[in-house]
Amino acid sequence: MDFPSKLLENAVNEMAQLPGIGKRTALRLVLHLLRQPIEQTTGLTTALDLLRNEIKYCRSCYAISDTNLCEICEKPSRDHSIICVVEDVRDVMALENTQLYKGIYHVLGGKISPIDGVGPSQLNILPLIDKVKNGGVTEIIFALSSTMEGDTTNFYIYKQIKDYEIITSTIARGIAVGDELQYADEVTLGRSLIHRVPFESSLKV
Amino acid sequence: MDFPSKLLENAVNEMAQLPGIGKRTALRLVLHLLRQPIEQTTGLTTALDLLRNEIKYCRSCYAISDTNLCEICEKPSRDHSIICVVEDVRDVMALENTQLYKGIYHVLGGKISPIDGVGPSQLNILPLIDKVKNGGVTEIIFALSSTMEGDTTNFYIYKQIKDYEIITSTIARGIAVGDELQYADEVTLGRSLIHRVPFESSLKV
Repeated sequence: MDFPSKLLENAVNEMAQLPGIGKRTALRLVLHLLRQPIEQTTGLTTALDLLRNEIKYCRSCYAISDTNLCEICEKPSRDHSIICVVEDVRDVMALENTQLYKGIYHVLGGKISPIDGVGPSQLNILPLIDKVKNGGVTEIIFALSSTMEGDTTNFYIYKQIKDYEIITSTIARGIAVGDELQYADEVTLGRSLIHRVPFESSLKV
Repeated sequence: MDFPSKLLENAVNEMAQLPGIGKRTALRLVLHLLRQPIEQTTGLTTALDLLRNEIKYCRSCYAISDTNLCEICEKPSRDHSIICVVEDVRDVMALENTQLYKGIYHVLGGKISPIDGVGPSQLNILPLIDKVKNGGVTEIIFALSSTMEGDTTNFYIYKQIKDYEIITSTIARGIAVGDELQYADEVTLGRSLIHRVPFESSLKV
């Protein structure tokens, strides 16, 4: 693309570095900003700069937070003996949305993925093991994605905590609510059959 | 969406104001920026702020430009008597890409669209009429999108310049190169038939 302006070209190139945004989309977004009042651009850039400079990570669960200890870890009403292990803060938001979980979280910041060069040391795994070692934890719930990387990460952590007297569990794999049985893959269907739940307890939620 | 952080929420809300970007995509983009080195965020915000504050519009053709007169209008080698009327700077870039046009441009900044509240006074139509009135223009080429709004805008301008001794033309509507005839709509096909070109001249480009 030949740009009529260096300023425009720079803005488009920077915007196009965002994932899933190509040069054409970036140009469309930047031209949109130029047509809007200047406040929209400064609003966006100020919010991004502030976020990047001021953001903190909870020193207990490593979730994104405005304070040193996040809202969830801070609450005495949450059960601090149950820890749900998740990949990132989006998973925390999704699980909080269900309003069914009363324990706390531990955000790993990713999954073990040798192909992407992500090993255990790049993730917040050690602090989790330390929490278990220090006692007070009764259950670890693995809530990572059901992928090869997620399973690897689950197993890596499991191996290191299995000798401590705690319960380890994973969230149930099965047919999503609203899904039709005939379209489910056989692994999911198989697991949903093996880990079937008593009908009475399925009525509760 | 319940955000664990106000800073995150603000950044996502600002990002989600861009066209075609919903809250979920905005969250994904913002979290991506958080995982990258801080230079990527400052690079993006600086480029956007600079663009918004420093950008100029060519005082002759109204295209985005770093200088008061854009590169194209500045060149003596361009034919200043032929003016191609386009909607925005993306059209200038697309036409320049063909390397076939040697005249200059006039960027309207949009199309007449009463439904969106855009009338002739919001567009750079008056300066175009003035250029024609002041003389020196031999041809006006309309290169707006082939939509109701584009046709309305073409006709509005045409009415005001038709009494001056200049050629007015529109870019050809027809079957796109590489397209199959059977999938073309009847209006396009009809126009391409009526405005057929001598075979010899079709061999040139």
